[in-house]
Amino acid sequence: MTDILQDALAQIARDVDAGFDAMLAVPRDGRQRLVEAMRYAAIGGGKRVRPLLLTATAELYGVDRALAVRASLALEAIHVYSLIHDDLPCMDDDELRHGKPTVHKAFDEATAVLAGDALHAFAFEVLSDPQTTGDPFTRAELVFCLGTASGMNGMAGGQMMDIVAESETFDLPTVTRLQQLKPGALLGAAVEMGAILGRVAPEGRMHLRGYARDAGLAFQIADDLLDHEGDEAAAGKALRKDAGQGKQTFVTLFGADRARAQARMLVDQAIAHLSQYGPEADLLRALARFIIERDR
Amino acid sequence: MTDILQDALAQIARDVDAGFDAMLAVPRDGRQRLVEAMRYAAIGGGKRVRPLLLTATAELYGVDRALAVRASLALEAIHVYSLIHDDLPCMDDDELRHGKPTVHKAFDEATAVLAGDALHAFAFEVLSDPQTTGDPFTRAELVFCLGTASGMNGMAGGQMMDIVAESETFDLPTVTRLQQLKPGALLGAAVEMGAILGRVAPEGRMHLRGYARDAGLAFQIADDLLDHEGDEAAAGKALRKDAGQGKQTFVTLFGADRARAQARMLVDQAIAHLSQYGPEADLLRALARFIIERDR
Repeated sequence: MTDILQDALAQIARDVDAGFDAMLAVPRDGRQRLVEAMRYAAIGGGKRVRPLLLTATAELYGVDRALAVRASLALEAIHVYSLIHDDLPCMDDDELRHGKPTVHKAFDEATAVLAGDALHAFAFEVLSDPQTTGDPFTRAELVFCLGTASGMNGMAGGQMMDIVAESETFDLPTVTRLQQLKPGALLGAAVEMGAILGRVAPEGRMHLRGYARDAGLAFQIADDLLDHEGDEAAAGKALRKDAGQGKQTFVTLFGADRARAQARMLVDQAIAHLSQYGPEADLLRALARFIIERDR
Repeated sequence: MTDILQDALAQIARDVDAGFDAMLAVPRDGRQRLVEAMRYAAIGGGKRVRPLLLTATAELYGVDRALAVRASLALEAIHVYSLIHDDLPCMDDDELRHGKPTVHKAFDEATAVLAGDALHAFAFEVLSDPQTTGDPFTRAELVFCLGTASGMNGMAGGQMMDIVAESETFDLPTVTRLQQLKPGALLGAAVEMGAILGRVAPEGRMHLRGYARDAGLAFQIADDLLDHEGDEAAAGKALRKDAGQGKQTFVTLFGADRARAQARMLVDQAIAHLSQYGPEADLLRALARFIIERDR
């Protein structure tokens, strides 16, 4: 990993943890357990790839860092809620996440469902809060972008396809579609939200969407490869699950070698979308390369 | 029930069903099951009290009805998602809702979790959609109102307290607090959202908040009374659950007679908050009275 990326990942991890810590104050009433579960899931885990994507994109347009970090808390809250719900016994039934017990193991299932729901609402509360930005147009646009990316036409739709994929055999276009929704939609929202904060009009975001789409697909292939041949201890979660569930992925469809070559090609393509930028986009370039090198 | 209320409930039920039907088109891919579950839960059930509260309040300020109905779809989507999640085996474990099998019974648990999540995102997508209203300030304010009302400081927080209430004994202030969060927060959001659409400044909404707070508490007491002495067939759901779970409610704390008197007093109080209006608020008055007369 390059120094620039390592520093940026460490910095955003600190900022995101500090932001969640400040905004998720534990109330001294019957809601204490809820907020403790939200904090348990949100603070101190994960690579914070989405917040880094958002803040690095915002930086291209000179957006105030505190504002970008605040928006990235909303985005990461959606990601964290989806992990809590995906880990539930009725979904992937996972016991380990970021090397520690999943929320329903550390607390209980009902609390896990609710903590996910409350983080979901938290995201939209933060984005629409006048304290985040005084500009109502930006607030509304951020909400619309994240709402679309996380609902039935985005992440939740992709998760449904992921479940259906366990019992139905998908062809390549369907597998691609699945992965454009999950994780693609939220990664796309990360760069879009950065550009929204920079007041870039939708037509001016095309290349960023292209970057996110290609990097997102590479990210998913890397995840599939990790599931196929990664090290559980390094990953901090259960692996070898796709094969066990008979799920079609790029790796099961093409084999590991071709999947790896495809991921490399997608990363090159993602970086090519950034050709209009100079060194100010080096962080986004390094992040795209990191995607296929990571071990967790 | 008065004619004015009966007509209004029938009308809003038609409008809400038609709105969900139009906006939840079933995709022909792996997401089909998800959207079918969302439609199953959202269409053709429930009293639509929250949409009626919202549209009746909006009408006080001459808001276009189509706009008010659209905002009420978002509000009702939040209510419906909360019912889906509350009915899950790990929560209240209910098999019947509005007289038909709950979503996890008709589909499965994973689909129920996801359908709830997707309806949750749908709500904020609708409110922030420029097609809903061209005014970004109104869009952002609607999202902030509903986000706050549904998260840890609103409905989700109240649901956590509701779960904790099964194992801890709450005193009266805590029971009141619980019910101000759930169902109070969402009922409050209904009138607030109507006033936001009418571009009423926060200071001008005090009496409406008072109306919603008092009517909301009466609504909860009526629910507790229903659970205590109602008819399961009429209610379309399992009753006699509070006593079985050892949960403190106004009815267990005070007995049915005093609870009933308290609910009547609260309804009178709610109606008194509307003294500045003439006949244009008759629907809101009738709705408050209906709360303590309903049998489901």
